[in-house]
Amino acid sequence: MRRFLVQLEFQGKRYSGWQKQANANTVQEEVERALSKLFGVDTPSFGCSRTDAGVSAERYFFHFDADTKLPADRIAYKLNRFLPKDVQAQSSREVPLSFDARKSVKEKTYTYSFYISDHIRPLLSSDHVQIEPPFDLEKVKSEATCLIGTHDFASFRTIGYENNEKKTTVRTISHVGFTENEGELIISVTGDGFLYNMVRIVCGTLVEIGTGKLTDLKGILDAKDRSRAGKTLPPKGLKLKDVQY
Amino acid sequence: MRRFLVQLEFQGKRYSGWQKQANANTVQEEVERALSKLFGVDTPSFGCSRTDAGVSAERYFFHFDADTKLPADRIAYKLNRFLPKDVQAQSSREVPLSFDARKSVKEKTYTYSFYISDHIRPLLSSDHVQIEPPFDLEKVKSEATCLIGTHDFASFRTIGYENNEKKTTVRTISHVGFTENEGELIISVTGDGFLYNMVRIVCGTLVEIGTGKLTDLKGILDAKDRSRAGKTLPPKGLKLKDVQY
Repeated sequence: MRRFLVQLEFQGKRYSGWQKQANANTVQEEVERALSKLFGVDTPSFGCSRTDAGVSAERYFFHFDADTKLPADRIAYKLNRFLPKDVQAQSSREVPLSFDARKSVKEKTYTYSFYISDHIRPLLSSDHVQIEPPFDLEKVKSEATCLIGTHDFASFRTIGYENNEKKTTVRTISHVGFTENEGELIISVTGDGFLYNMVRIVCGTLVEIGTGKLTDLKGILDAKDRSRAGKTLPPKGLKLKDVQY
Repeated sequence: MRRFLVQLEFQGKRYSGWQKQANANTVQEEVERALSKLFGVDTPSFGCSRTDAGVSAERYFFHFDADTKLPADRIAYKLNRFLPKDVQAQSSREVPLSFDARKSVKEKTYTYSFYISDHIRPLLSSDHVQIEPPFDLEKVKSEATCLIGTHDFASFRTIGYENNEKKTTVRTISHVGFTENEGELIISVTGDGFLYNMVRIVCGTLVEIGTGKLTDLKGILDAKDRSRAGKTLPPKGLKLKDVQY
């Protein structure tokens, strides 16, 4: 038996996230259908993270085990023949049997895409969220520094959805970045893990700091109170950008 | 009577270009419908260029005349209430009656978007064209310099579509640019005017130079023979990026 790690890019619009569920279209279902066709046997897949409905991924990873003589780097090509056009493997390689696509993750980076404009921008609106000026980006950058480090992010999670074994709301954020170009603003957040909806709530709060609707990000963080933070942004602007192993 | 210049952004997928035609959905039709609703009277619009079916524009301009007391910069907001979400005004200003959205154009810049990958990239494929490696970008950049200047571009136009009054196939290209980032390649072409399908054929030829299917761009240009150039790329990757007045 050999273990393979596949890098996937997917457009999330048609899917209820990665994880298989009854009565829902999921990326994992598409992947396992393709694996079964390729290997002629049911082949479970193990993703690097759930991902919410409608969220896209530029670099998603999953692993699976198979008894095959195929060269590891050919698997991406073979799988793509059985995958839909909005879910496509970008590369594949063999990993040790001790490697786990989820447990071996060191950090993940998500991006959230905005444009700053008084008007709807037709070329961006399908996967960016509009911010109406005035927007004080320098203020946002300065306030955002308080997020870096190990903190209790209870203010920035949707309550009532307690995921897996990890009961703590403490996470470590190593980087928050801002890229602005021709009215487009991309916020990136890198961390060792994220609470449910955390990136969408953090980015929603940062936007409200920039428009002046909220102040004192540090106070909001310290309060550990969801009601103090900004709104949860829609899935369309969120993208799993990369995973570090 | 006052003359107004409106900057428009539109997603071209649903439209047969700018120019009104029988039995076709066009951007001009949407614009004139919105103008009529806003001013309560039929209001002709004059665009900066045709644009092919399916092609998008980040900065398209049109002018119109109206007898109105509205502040010029409010017109963009007012029009957007009557425009579809894939065609939206970005700004508006008053111009002299001698100004003409098409005739006053000094230069236009088009971009064509690609990604270089062995695999389909779901997050880019709706508006980028795939280039399969190996692709020699340095060779393309070096060959492309022969396009700069005033030349007869007869090799790079679709024949059988002789547009307007301009019978010559001589045009002046002032800039050809290449931006590469994370596997995405954007070619930009700036010139005083373009023959029918010229940017799509020039970019198609540049791609075939890069993949080694074609050589000697200068020879292709000098031949003034459409059959020597590369294929016409599809509309989805093309975008009117800007217009200089």
